[in-house]
Amino acid sequence: MTKKVAVILSGCGVYDGAEIHESVITLLRLDQRGAQVQCFAPNVAQMHVIDHLTGQEMPESRNVLTESARIARGEVKDIRQARAEDFDALIVPGGFGAAKNLSDFAVQGAECTVNPEVLALAEAFAEACKPVGLICISPALAAKIYGPGVVCTIGNDEGTAAAVEKMGAKHEQCDVHDIVEDTQRKLVTTPAYMVATSISEAASGIYKLIDRVLELTHEGE
Amino acid sequence: MTKKVAVILSGCGVYDGAEIHESVITLLRLDQRGAQVQCFAPNVAQMHVIDHLTGQEMPESRNVLTESARIARGEVKDIRQARAEDFDALIVPGGFGAAKNLSDFAVQGAECTVNPEVLALAEAFAEACKPVGLICISPALAAKIYGPGVVCTIGNDEGTAAAVEKMGAKHEQCDVHDIVEDTQRKLVTTPAYMVATSISEAASGIYKLIDRVLELTHEGE
Repeated sequence: MTKKVAVILSGCGVYDGAEIHESVITLLRLDQRGAQVQCFAPNVAQMHVIDHLTGQEMPESRNVLTESARIARGEVKDIRQARAEDFDALIVPGGFGAAKNLSDFAVQGAECTVNPEVLALAEAFAEACKPVGLICISPALAAKIYGPGVVCTIGNDEGTAAAVEKMGAKHEQCDVHDIVEDTQRKLVTTPAYMVATSISEAASGIYKLIDRVLELTHEGE
Repeated sequence: MTKKVAVILSGCGVYDGAEIHESVITLLRLDQRGAQVQCFAPNVAQMHVIDHLTGQEMPESRNVLTESARIARGEVKDIRQARAEDFDALIVPGGFGAAKNLSDFAVQGAECTVNPEVLALAEAFAEACKPVGLICISPALAAKIYGPGVVCTIGNDEGTAAAVEKMGAKHEQCDVHDIVEDTQRKLVTTPAYMVATSISEAASGIYKLIDRVLELTHEGE
């Protein structure tokens, strides 16, 4: 039976939105494995706009949903329309958008808050014990979604790992080619570009994450 | 020996720039096959900016090089810095950017002109008989680069094929999973999203194109 997967995007570009390689690799692998995908994004202004050539902030404003539509070729919906009961699994690619637009982790660290619509949707998947895959920096949201004790990885960056632990998560170091799984909560995480030095390295961990998340949707069948 | 490949991007988003899936799949496959990649883009304003959610034009201006940097994670250079002698092959992904920013084919059809820097670089690869891969709508530039008689595909769209033929190319219909090769000119083309109904369909033809282009770089060794 075809599995339905929701993907949360956070803009379009590693420094102010969803990491494009991670997002496309996620969509590619889900499609290759026969999953039916629907992208969602919050209909809010980006925290800011970064010139990806210079790294400098640009004096303009862009909308997270509108920019996410670039990655999704128009096929993205306002996250307010997302209902966990319509899907078998949830995936959140990384990029600074996860830490700037889906939450304010990039600014507030362990004191961060998560966009309420993003949090409500992710919590609904967690409560229904449906598998969730968080990629790159997105596992910074894990403790907010699952509460203390959730097991996850953001790779091996000590500062980020410390912030994640301060929020209540149990951080495990992880190689770029590998995943960390919280079997009780059905949460799968992989570091991708938190660690990757090339696109094929990022792809190897993301492929493993997607395959495992889809495998978990079949548990109990 | 590591092969060096230049990739020309044309912005960031299917409707006004480089098609993101095609671009990322190109970068992924090149990296998986061990090629060393450098992205380039023209440092010019986009023809326009399209809201990818609504399809409407937005009242703003974006730069092709700056937006291409989103796909390239900052690692993109002004095409004026590109020298064919530094590379073994050239790849141009599709998206409307190829027909709006690299050329004006989207507006002028068979009467189009190509950005002079893009044309000069592509011509230098052609003259050196180095392999070139054109994806999706990019083969619309083939007749401008190679002159009359060049063999290529844009899939099966009759209007586009007629325009391409009017420019002097010989168009061959092609399945999304396949490639067309002009063996004399070492030009490889594949329709990707001119025909693809899913990202994995687009990937199958692009993988085949990249693999063949890299194979051609070894000819005569």
